[in-house]
Amino acid sequence: MNKINIGLIGLGNIGTGVVKLLEQNCELIEQRLGAKLILKKIADIDISATRSIKANKYKMTTDAREIINDKDISIVIELIGGYEPARTFLLEAIGQGKHVVTANKALLAKHGNEIFQVAQKKGVDIGFEASVGRTIPIIKTLKESLVANRINSIFGILNGTSNYILTRMTDKGDKFDVVLKEAQAMGFAEADPTFDIEGTDTAHKLAIILSLAYGKKVNLDDIYAEGISRISREDIAFSKELGYKIKLLAIAMLKKDAVEARIHPTMIVSSHLIANVNENFNAFHVMGDASGPVFLFGQGAGMLPTASAVFSDIIDVSRNILKGISCRVPLRSINESVIEEIKLIPMDDVETRYYFRFSVMDRPGVLSKISGILGENKISISTVIQKARIKKGSVPIVMTTYKAKEKNVRKALRKIDKLDVVMDKTMLIRIEDELN
Amino acid sequence: MNKINIGLIGLGNIGTGVVKLLEQNCELIEQRLGAKLILKKIADIDISATRSIKANKYKMTTDAREIINDKDISIVIELIGGYEPARTFLLEAIGQGKHVVTANKALLAKHGNEIFQVAQKKGVDIGFEASVGRTIPIIKTLKESLVANRINSIFGILNGTSNYILTRMTDKGDKFDVVLKEAQAMGFAEADPTFDIEGTDTAHKLAIILSLAYGKKVNLDDIYAEGISRISREDIAFSKELGYKIKLLAIAMLKKDAVEARIHPTMIVSSHLIANVNENFNAFHVMGDASGPVFLFGQGAGMLPTASAVFSDIIDVSRNILKGISCRVPLRSINESVIEEIKLIPMDDVETRYYFRFSVMDRPGVLSKISGILGENKISISTVIQKARIKKGSVPIVMTTYKAKEKNVRKALRKIDKLDVVMDKTMLIRIEDELN
Repeated sequence: MNKINIGLIGLGNIGTGVVKLLEQNCELIEQRLGAKLILKKIADIDISATRSIKANKYKMTTDAREIINDKDISIVIELIGGYEPARTFLLEAIGQGKHVVTANKALLAKHGNEIFQVAQKKGVDIGFEASVGRTIPIIKTLKESLVANRINSIFGILNGTSNYILTRMTDKGDKFDVVLKEAQAMGFAEADPTFDIEGTDTAHKLAIILSLAYGKKVNLDDIYAEGISRISREDIAFSKELGYKIKLLAIAMLKKDAVEARIHPTMIVSSHLIANVNENFNAFHVMGDASGPVFLFGQGAGMLPTASAVFSDIIDVSRNILKGISCRVPLRSINESVIEEIKLIPMDDVETRYYFRFSVMDRPGVLSKISGILGENKISISTVIQKARIKKGSVPIVMTTYKAKEKNVRKALRKIDKLDVVMDKTMLIRIEDELN
Repeated sequence: MNKINIGLIGLGNIGTGVVKLLEQNCELIEQRLGAKLILKKIADIDISATRSIKANKYKMTTDAREIINDKDISIVIELIGGYEPARTFLLEAIGQGKHVVTANKALLAKHGNEIFQVAQKKGVDIGFEASVGRTIPIIKTLKESLVANRINSIFGILNGTSNYILTRMTDKGDKFDVVLKEAQAMGFAEADPTFDIEGTDTAHKLAIILSLAYGKKVNLDDIYAEGISRISREDIAFSKELGYKIKLLAIAMLKKDAVEARIHPTMIVSSHLIANVNENFNAFHVMGDASGPVFLFGQGAGMLPTASAVFSDIIDVSRNILKGISCRVPLRSINESVIEEIKLIPMDDVETRYYFRFSVMDRPGVLSKISGILGENKISISTVIQKARIKKGSVPIVMTTYKAKEKNVRKALRKIDKLDVVMDKTMLIRIEDELN
């Protein structure tokens, strides 16, 4: 039976999952692949740590180059995460003509252009199914299953931590800070949760998704990303009253030859499939011009779910190796030699519906002042909710609007927030009624 | 630029969709594939029919062999459906060394063993993504994305017509016959709806799914299939009261080295994702031992959604052709030379929960007689609902049970249905609380 040697760089949580899964389903993998996968070497800066696998069964090293330069290793699995030294290791491995499998969304979102171009020149494969949506086969679906479709829209829940927090706030009425602390204590929110809760992690993933859906280079910084840290229990309660759930959505929409790409807390009708994706699950809703809606749901995190995705790549690359080929499917849906920059629509030009929560003094004339400014900026009000006072001296007024332009909304809110009757920064949440 | 010639047999609804999609997204397909797809010939028994494409732009023939024997055609697309002459055409095309793409679930479910074995011997590829779940990439997901997983369970809604009927009965309280007639008038239920409503179509699809999930040969006739034609508005109403929705589910569960495979109307908790798959949508819930739950949802029918799946296969095969290879991924997850028969658990041995609706005379002692017989057969009652009389002389008693064995349930119902106080055949619906 044929053998394929693989080397693993990074024996953290996911790396351990990969070893575990290879041990657990070794026979099944061999049978389906028709070849043996041999984990020849594992590199980690800490080779003495206690892990849930017997690491001493494997050749361990602290020097990643022992893997990168090993002539017998065909596939390098990079699971250390972060920008460096991951980028250097990856480029070196590619330089050695090795195929690479990675789960590193930050790296690919930021340095993808460099990495994919070098890989194609070298004629090696890069597998990155685990970088977005982990166990959910969104990358293969976009690159292969929906290959004949123009992708009219994609939206999804791409960050499990944010979704967990919003679910708890919605279902149990918990406060943001309380749930975040709990999630940190349980180990599935980072000590520094900024990337997760401020939309950065979601932006990394959306950048990758955009590049595959449209076969384009994407500049990460051009994607508008706003997180969930300002969402309060009040907003959750008002959204329920309005028939919506609040989710941190990544949204991409094709508009002629340009794409709208944005990440922000979003109110969506409670009965929508994506509104019912709870806990730390991820989901993608893809609308192809031929396929119609395709909805994919699964674990967006976790040791074994991620390992499952890593192995789909390892086996994909191995099948190429066994047939003596590589680069069967273009890395980013089209050949790197003809790939162009994506045209993103500036956030200012986005049009959608809005939810505003104004904190105002309980005085006559306030509503008229606010609605006057909105009117001046071509923002039409759809619904108004005014409740009794809840903070001393302050009363919330909630409004939803018809479709308005982001630029106008910001201009109006700047003016409104300067009014002496407005006591706090106005809360804004975008409403999406037409996501399909 | 490279060219790949394809030939299409069958210009019905799906065939027309394939031509339409190729025209619509020609440039995009070319860019992603890096080659031109040339539709060289189309065969159909009726070449003069009016269609929504300009068929006269293509070389049309009434003789499928003109395609099968055309030396320039590399991929034959079979979209005539049914067993014959589809089987003969397919085998002949394979015999000519041509790759085949088909959407024909009935053919593959019944003659898959023959076809796949011949194809592997000939070293040609068979693409059949469109045969199950149409636009939903369930086949690629099972064969490639979840390749490193032991599949603990799969369940799903695989027939759009049945799901449409159940949705209408549930949401609008309509009667089975009324909705069926409407669906027929709208053209998405067949004149003879037996295959759709009696579970046969679902069984075809489940047989294919089973073979991929477990890498085994499946005998279609060994799959238990029960349709929705006996579901009444009463059952729908009672299921609501009990917190369930009724869906026609295909269920596969791995039990040690054997598999439980069955199709029947199923009560599932209303909040379950799959309970919220409505209208004529299809969905699959796959539980891998590493991946955890993966849920896929999309159009299970329709001209363009099906064409989207057909093209994912055409392009997959084309990528192989461009690299000079074939059979990169085993047709049924493992090599045909080592494929074995699946071990299916007999329906008699299945254990699940049950819903019974007894139609009885409104007399003292009836409940005691029925529950006595259930007790004798080791069936424990979980809940009982007894309502006022609705038919003359007859009153419904509804019971749900704890887990019981199918064999015992049938035995008990045979005895109960012979009681002189029982006025009609007892309705039985299986309840699944542990699907995950």
